[in-house]
Amino acid sequence: MTKILKGKSVANSLMKKISEKVKELKAKGVFPTLAIVRLGDNPQDISYERGAVKRAFQLGITVRQFVYDEKISQGELIEEIQRLNDDSHIHGVLIFRPLPGHINESEICSALSPAKDVDGITSGSMAGVFMDSDIGFPPCTAEACMEILDHYGYDLEGKRVLVMGRSLVIGKPAAMMAMRRNATVSVCHSRTSNEDLRKLGQNADIVIAAVGKACMIKSGWLGKGQVIIDVGINVKEDGSLCGDVDFDEVYEIASAITPVPGGVGSVTTAILMKHVAEAAEKQ
Amino acid sequence: MTKILKGKSVANSLMKKISEKVKELKAKGVFPTLAIVRLGDNPQDISYERGAVKRAFQLGITVRQFVYDEKISQGELIEEIQRLNDDSHIHGVLIFRPLPGHINESEICSALSPAKDVDGITSGSMAGVFMDSDIGFPPCTAEACMEILDHYGYDLEGKRVLVMGRSLVIGKPAAMMAMRRNATVSVCHSRTSNEDLRKLGQNADIVIAAVGKACMIKSGWLGKGQVIIDVGINVKEDGSLCGDVDFDEVYEIASAITPVPGGVGSVTTAILMKHVAEAAEKQ
Repeated sequence: MTKILKGKSVANSLMKKISEKVKELKAKGVFPTLAIVRLGDNPQDISYERGAVKRAFQLGITVRQFVYDEKISQGELIEEIQRLNDDSHIHGVLIFRPLPGHINESEICSALSPAKDVDGITSGSMAGVFMDSDIGFPPCTAEACMEILDHYGYDLEGKRVLVMGRSLVIGKPAAMMAMRRNATVSVCHSRTSNEDLRKLGQNADIVIAAVGKACMIKSGWLGKGQVIIDVGINVKEDGSLCGDVDFDEVYEIASAITPVPGGVGSVTTAILMKHVAEAAEKQ
Repeated sequence: MTKILKGKSVANSLMKKISEKVKELKAKGVFPTLAIVRLGDNPQDISYERGAVKRAFQLGITVRQFVYDEKISQGELIEEIQRLNDDSHIHGVLIFRPLPGHINESEICSALSPAKDVDGITSGSMAGVFMDSDIGFPPCTAEACMEILDHYGYDLEGKRVLVMGRSLVIGKPAAMMAMRRNATVSVCHSRTSNEDLRKLGQNADIVIAAVGKACMIKSGWLGKGQVIIDVGINVKEDGSLCGDVDFDEVYEIASAITPVPGGVGSVTTAILMKHVAEAAEKQ
């Protein structure tokens, strides 16, 4: 019987731990606070923001929303970020991306203090995840993959982990985090041949799929009894959501698989809150 | 006939290019300068330093040696590093490591400006190699592996690359640099099972060996016709040098292999000089 690795119970268990930490911090007079920086009214941003505000409320974490006109200049936005860096009442900052075309995104990311970079967008956080040091925070989605595996008791030590995708937001950091857990890690991507993809796919113990293409990963690419973490969230023609993995097909052969929706995506905001509490604790 | 990938011709070709760049810089009044920071008189450091000074002299790069007593305090050493950061006549800084036990090495590394970090020891350089951005410089030895492959015309696009070892100095950055060249990369390490090691080893097109154990990698772990980059430099009981790969055995089945000595190690100081020239150009 294939196990469905639901995100909800992972998030719930995380929320309990974070809630305790928040209480401890408040008892010491520290009120964990997240600043959300949004330019314009992108519906996706607003929907994620709503989820984050709800989670934060459940935990007693304060959220302060900073909404700017899409036409804000580079200089003005950097000044705003610096103000948030300097504000000792704000512990974490989430900046919605992609930013509008006239904004130099990497310069904005560099302006943020790694200590407040709760979503892993600064070079400090990137160095932290690469070096396995405590600079900044790993990107929330990559950490959500590890949190799910940890929660359901999958020890990565000595396991063959295949990461599909090499983005800075998921593929590369997930590979580093799996390596830190002593897994033997392979990373495939758009330039990997289908033959290699299949060989690596069939030989893996755990597959983390982050290719960003709806239902692209079929059962023929994978082996029996694997644990599948599907990071993709894609909208199908009929408006329903699906992952990067063809769930119906792969469910038949996997030993465990995350659903979409209700899998990785539902753990991400809990990780974000965990980072805010940790940032508040460190500062 | 197995090809011996000698480092010398790679270094020579690099030296030509660097020499031209140095001339251009000097014509503009910029005199590329490397500062070497050494604590005490470790014979290995002195030997590397001698090689670097010789290479620099051939290129017209100035080397300034900063030799301190091994008992220098943390604070004093940081002050010295900051002085080098602020000195506009110095473009690159090489710090010999490991530093003595009483020194907090990671704090020293953090004190160095990434712009002058020609040996890739700062978190800025680590972020640069992970993110594939132009912050800092990659570790010289990892880049030397890529330089050898490039020089001898091995295109990594779509190739299966196995990196043996996950250190921050070689394994991880080499994996990132191979991935940037569109290779499908696997990283194995001390916690990888022998069975997985053999499977990945036999299936690779290119193997980068950086495990730090004399002649550990035997032909049975590898496949026929592979390209082998041996990063190891180990001293055998009889005082002679050998790599991480059992050269005599692997030579019989590989299509190409770097020798030890005379392979990767002989390219490293040329890469260091390349970084000094690049740093001088950027600053």
